[in-house]
Amino acid sequence: MAPIDRAKILTDLGVFGDFAVYKLRPEYAMLPAADRKAAAAEVLAVVEKHKDKVIVDAYLTRGFDAKSDYFLRVHAYDLAAAQKFLTDFRATKFGSYSDVTENLVGITKALNYITKQKSETLNAGLFAATYTDPAPRYAIMIPVKKNAEWWNMTPEQRLKEIEVHTAPTLQYLVNVKRKLYHSTGLSDTDFITYFETNDLGAFNNLLIALAQVPENKYHVRWGNPTVLGTIQSIDSVVKTLSDADRSM
Amino acid sequence: MAPIDRAKILTDLGVFGDFAVYKLRPEYAMLPAADRKAAAAEVLAVVEKHKDKVIVDAYLTRGFDAKSDYFLRVHAYDLAAAQKFLTDFRATKFGSYSDVTENLVGITKALNYITKQKSETLNAGLFAATYTDPAPRYAIMIPVKKNAEWWNMTPEQRLKEIEVHTAPTLQYLVNVKRKLYHSTGLSDTDFITYFETNDLGAFNNLLIALAQVPENKYHVRWGNPTVLGTIQSIDSVVKTLSDADRSM
Amino acid sequence: MAPIDRAKILTDLGVFGDFAVYKLRPEYAMLPAADRKAAAAEVLAVVEKHKDKVIVDAYLTRGFDAKSDYFLRVHAYDLAAAQKFLTDFRATKFGSYSDVTENLVGITKALNYITKQKSETLNAGLFAATYTDPAPRYAIMIPVKKNAEWWNMTPEQRLKEIEVHTAPTLQYLVNVKRKLYHSTGLSDTDFITYFETNDLGAFNNLLIALAQVPENKYHVRWGNPTVLGTIQSIDSVVKTLSDADRSM
Amino acid sequence: MAPIDRAKILTDLGVFGDFAVYKLRPEYAMLPAADRKAAAAEVLAVVEKHKDKVIVDAYLTRGFDAKSDYFLRVHAYDLAAAQKFLTDFRATKFGSYSDVTENLVGITKALNYITKQKSETLNAGLFAATYTDPAPRYAIMIPVKKNAEWWNMTPEQRLKEIEVHTAPTLQYLVNVKRKLYHSTGLSDTDFITYFETNDLGAFNNLLIALAQVPENKYHVRWGNPTVLGTIQSIDSVVKTLSDADRSM
Amino acid sequence: MAPIDRAKILTDLGVFGDFAVYKLRPEYAMLPAADRKAAAAEVLAVVEKHKDKVIVDAYLTRGFDAKSDYFLRVHAYDLAAAQKFLTDFRATKFGSYSDVTENLVGITKALNYITKQKSETLNAGLFAATYTDPAPRYAIMIPVKKNAEWWNMTPEQRLKEIEVHTAPTLQYLVNVKRKLYHSTGLSDTDFITYFETNDLGAFNNLLIALAQVPENKYHVRWGNPTVLGTIQSIDSVVKTLSDADRSM
Repeated sequence: MAPIDRAKILTDLGVFGDFAVYKLRPEYAMLPAADRKAAAAEVLAVVEKHKDKVIVDAYLTRGFDAKSDYFLRVHAYDLAAAQKFLTDFRATKFGSYSDVTENLVGITKALNYITKQKSETLNAGLFAATYTDPAPRYAIMIPVKKNAEWWNMTPEQRLKEIEVHTAPTLQYLVNVKRKLYHSTGLSDTDFITYFETNDLGAFNNLLIALAQVPENKYHVRWGNPTVLGTIQSIDSVVKTLSDADRSM
Repeated sequence: MAPIDRAKILTDLGVFGDFAVYKLRPEYAMLPAADRKAAAAEVLAVVEKHKDKVIVDAYLTRGFDAKSDYFLRVHAYDLAAAQKFLTDFRATKFGSYSDVTENLVGITKALNYITKQKSETLNAGLFAATYTDPAPRYAIMIPVKKNAEWWNMTPEQRLKEIEVHTAPTLQYLVNVKRKLYHSTGLSDTDFITYFETNDLGAFNNLLIALAQVPENKYHVRWGNPTVLGTIQSIDSVVKTLSDADRSM
Repeated sequence: MAPIDRAKILTDLGVFGDFAVYKLRPEYAMLPAADRKAAAAEVLAVVEKHKDKVIVDAYLTRGFDAKSDYFLRVHAYDLAAAQKFLTDFRATKFGSYSDVTENLVGITKALNYITKQKSETLNAGLFAATYTDPAPRYAIMIPVKKNAEWWNMTPEQRLKEIEVHTAPTLQYLVNVKRKLYHSTGLSDTDFITYFETNDLGAFNNLLIALAQVPENKYHVRWGNPTVLGTIQSIDSVVKTLSDADRSM
Repeated sequence: MAPIDRAKILTDLGVFGDFAVYKLRPEYAMLPAADRKAAAAEVLAVVEKHKDKVIVDAYLTRGFDAKSDYFLRVHAYDLAAAQKFLTDFRATKFGSYSDVTENLVGITKALNYITKQKSETLNAGLFAATYTDPAPRYAIMIPVKKNAEWWNMTPEQRLKEIEVHTAPTLQYLVNVKRKLYHSTGLSDTDFITYFETNDLGAFNNLLIALAQVPENKYHVRWGNPTVLGTIQSIDSVVKTLSDADRSM
Repeated sequence: MAPIDRAKILTDLGVFGDFAVYKLRPEYAMLPAADRKAAAAEVLAVVEKHKDKVIVDAYLTRGFDAKSDYFLRVHAYDLAAAQKFLTDFRATKFGSYSDVTENLVGITKALNYITKQKSETLNAGLFAATYTDPAPRYAIMIPVKKNAEWWNMTPEQRLKEIEVHTAPTLQYLVNVKRKLYHSTGLSDTDFITYFETNDLGAFNNLLIALAQVPENKYHVRWGNPTVLGTIQSIDSVVKTLSDADRSM
């Protein structure tokens, strides 16, 4: 049972990304410390059990978001495998005290607009710059849904809008990483946009730049929720929220 | 007491489809394993009891949707029979720990627009292609509600829009099955659209194609919720969520 | 203490209709069977106690609506009497486990538009046809709220729109009964529309006909909730939801 | 410690009105009857304790509104005094089982538009008529928020709209009492409108008249919630909801 | 371990402001008085532990807002430090009975529009007046989100609108303090506006003045929630809500 190749699945197309956002119920904090101490190991065992089918990233959101304490990003070539993992996760002690407050499913696809063929200069710009900041400590997940007017534009019109969208973002490639998932029909959103950064000021400027292009006029959902978290190991997320060293 | 003919009721007109979407309360996971072990058999007995009045399909949504863990699709010639089944279901141990988070009722009717008389070529297209992919593993339920402008168009205008809607969907008949229920006045939606597929990438493309036609401009509800699940036997859904083999 | 004359209060003007929609809390199902067995009698005693002030109709919605299990329609000449009844009802065992999920108050008034004076032919049409189907088994409650543009039209313009609204509905008088309550300022709706039918397919067609007239463009609320239930005695509603014969 | 002069504070300007709307948790009904019997006296003691700083009015909404059972209207010259009272109230047994479902704060100000200077005839009309019906048994609280277009009109334009608003309301002065609180920046509403009446039919007609003037086009919130209650002493409200004479 | 310099962090740029709004669960009031008595000291210890990384302000909102009882404003140079503090706070007895109902993160930045270079006179006006009223007793937190049309205006157009916005606010500098945080991409809002005042009537007038400028037409969120509280020490907030002197 070989674990999934992380680098490969993160760049492959046709891969499912399953974003599950959780809020821990207050009763969890009332459990005996021993139960909470054992929680991380039980969760890690579930991750280990599914390592040949899914990879799992974890983020701590407590203190940043009212509706969640943490979220998981699960990648799988077969969406049913992500369901199996998340079902097993929910059956752990920690998972069984976690309420799902948002859950979005998307799929990775080839670039639609800024391809070498359709938009050569911008495409080159996208691949010319790479992230040079210290390792990202923060991740942000922002769902995007577009209105009927957007979808009814011609491909040429949408290409033009995406070009205008892309130009001001190139300068942020050095301090913000991005990844896109397509969700139309799979969840109540069209896209899941995912970002990693170590520089939240730069990220704020990037998002303002994206607000300042005409594409923004076609958004019916942009955020709602905006989920900001610190990037952590799942072990660390569970332990931090389990607070197993305190007696209550 | 003969069971309902599944193939017949799934194609008959004037049949009620009752979609009940459930979220299991966390307390269920705290029940003794023996109780959870017995849950599936109790549910199956209720299905058996009503088999001459309703047929029941089940779907596991945990891991895909924040507001549900599973949903049931109940078909009946008499809507009161669906109510009786769902009331008995809610009285089982498993049902009594399930909260209903969405419940939509619709009725099947003859084709309104793409008939042989009104739109011969497209009608032929609808019946020329059939599903050829492996058996669908996924189902998606998407409610649709249209605005007053849509309903105030002439039948000819609506026919034209539905023709434009239908043309790009024909290519997906080979990998996506569809079924339509009419709900105006029965629930807070005009239609319940139901899909089965084994190819979620193709399904995502189909829904994007539907977003790209003018009809989309008349939607006031399209999804909300979009409920994606794996198609399973009700026995399997109950057992998976009952997790009866784990001690908590 | 003479009971209210049901036929009279259902046709009198200036009568209050108080629609209270309830969801039973799951804890109710966990009560001892004896408690649940006694529930219906206790509720009936409350109805009996108030029979000189209010009449009460009951409807089972479980299996049709996510946000309710049943609703009550209370008619009274004095709204405070309806409050007294509903307060006593909530103090019963069954009522104390019921959460109110919607509660709308309206008052009956004389016809505004389709009077003999203003619209003679349609008025005649309204009174020419009567319900001829088997006794209705289903009731539907749909709140309606209109926008400022509607209310700012002249009475003549609104009359015209209501005439266009009324014409296509006449054919459904044989299979759908209707009753209207006025709610502006009493609840967050302008009207409560109430229907009874035995033919949900005809009802669906009636509501589509109402969607297809210009008046629909002035709706800011039409449904939300649409509450569909089976017409039952309150005794039957309580007993069905009390499920007193099962041991849990 | 002299109690506040009720007549004076109800007509003074610069007075704070704090509307706190409550829903009793179902667990309250499960408390021992002795606890519920003692509840009213405990609440009255809190009112007595604060009588030199606040006056308190109480209203029973159970049976009229899904989201509340009662509401309090607290007047104070110093808003912090209203907070102190409401904090002490929430610390009573009855208050500790009450969830706040709406809470709006406003301040009384001099007439803005229909002054003797700006609109002499209507101003005279406002003061010419007085309430002549039997003592009001019902109160209605309706929040109002206006859109940016309204606020960006010139004072002269707003005066004109308020004149058109005022004219049709004069005839209802005999059967509806009114009071206005300003809330912009204090709560998510611009105004709290408060009414008392003994004639809900007349009140319904008044509100329809207000819907029929152009000012209605500038509303982004009008109601939501509309909270209708019977005017009662706080003692009566607590006792009615405590139902201390029944054994559960 | 030197505590953060309060005056400096409150004026520095690039500082994170983390607003966490809480509602105490009713179960807290049922805890033994001894537990509630010890709560404030435990919270103060957490504040002390983090004093070299964050400063914490506290506000009591009970009695003013339905969705909260108090809120915290945490300033930090490193947002992860605010998360660590809030996570530790949630692990206290008091924090573990507190539900987060809103949580917004922003960052301080240099003035965008009313700079000495771009708008000299108004800039001088901003710095000419200072707060002269008695120490503020109230604080108000109001999130602001602007639409795509706003963000797509040229910087010159936005400057003009902000000038029109600023002019009428200068007169309130003597009785209302203000502070601005930028949130685009960090939370579901563009700005967090924060005010302190001792004169809520003046504050109401200031907010009406802000409603009366064209900038208001570009708001998609202004408030929702508007959170009004009294400025208190965190010790006082915890003690007031812990009500440790009463036996329940």
